[in-house]
Amino acid sequence: MGLFSKDIKSMRDLFRHQLEDIYYAEQQIVKNLPDMAEKAKDPQLKQAFQAHLGETKTHVQRLEQVFGAIGEQAKGTDCEAMDGILKEAKHVISNVADPEVCDAAMLASAQAVEHYEITRYGTLIAWAKELGFSSSVGPLELTLSEERATDKKLTEIAEQRLNRKAAA
Amino acid sequence: MGLFSKDIKSMRDLFRHQLEDIYYAEQQIVKNLPDMAEKAKDPQLKQAFQAHLGETKTHVQRLEQVFGAIGEQAKGTDCEAMDGILKEAKHVISNVADPEVCDAAMLASAQAVEHYEITRYGTLIAWAKELGFSSSVGPLELTLSEERATDKKLTEIAEQRLNRKAAA
Repeated sequence: MGLFSKDIKSMRDLFRHQLEDIYYAEQQIVKNLPDMAEKAKDPQLKQAFQAHLGETKTHVQRLEQVFGAIGEQAKGTDCEAMDGILKEAKHVISNVADPEVCDAAMLASAQAVEHYEITRYGTLIAWAKELGFSSSVGPLELTLSEERATDKKLTEIAEQRLNRKAAA
Repeated sequence: MGLFSKDIKSMRDLFRHQLEDIYYAEQQIVKNLPDMAEKAKDPQLKQAFQAHLGETKTHVQRLEQVFGAIGEQAKGTDCEAMDGILKEAKHVISNVADPEVCDAAMLASAQAVEHYEITRYGTLIAWAKELGFSSSVGPLELTLSEERATDKKLTEIAEQRLNRKAAA
């Protein structure tokens, strides 16, 4: 997407741009999750990262379906938001000495990633409906429900961590 | 927060770091909202941005209270996530020709900002409870409820925009 001309002329262009943005974002998550799974000390957190990696690969494929359905080639555009969220996550994690504190930091970072995706998929679904891209709504809604479930799972893991600490 | 030593040694350090992160983020939002309010074509969206500017200034003050309550000086640390979200918002907005499409893009960007804040305040509240910072929980919960209300308001404005288009 060029930055020196007004390339986004219609809601359809905006939808395609947002699709390219989240396509790039999902690919960055696929690249980063294995490292987070490796670093996680809590077995439940490790397992959650590993499971979400599989899901995220499916999200990439679903986005390719959506690109296809609107007659576009799947491609990514730099998502500065996701780059920023992941850069910040790496900085914080590299700055933590204690493995348990590191797990808490990774949990929080992963929830920031999920919330970014939740808002973007919510927007994409609204715009797909507006534009009459009815066959795109289902796959986008499926991914949104999986992102929400992951966020919920991460909250549960965070609560269990606290309960264990309280019982210790 | 230095990047060459492991400065975050405890949950308390992590809490303080997260507080510095959101303090910087809220200040960036204060800087950016007037420009978004000016650009908004939809009077309701313009009004929502203006109202949220007032709220955001209060959020900054509440964070200063929380810093004070844990015996720390209020200060910000670069929040690469918020920088990324706002940079992306500016790129997209500057790339849109049509004012109505621009409103849709700004709405989506503002919801990405809100979701970042929602996840961060949610985490801060959980950590404040864990650390026994009981006097910090109330102000953080108040801000969280306002961020959630703003996100809901933005969704309503987006839906009204669609209803108006459908009726046109």
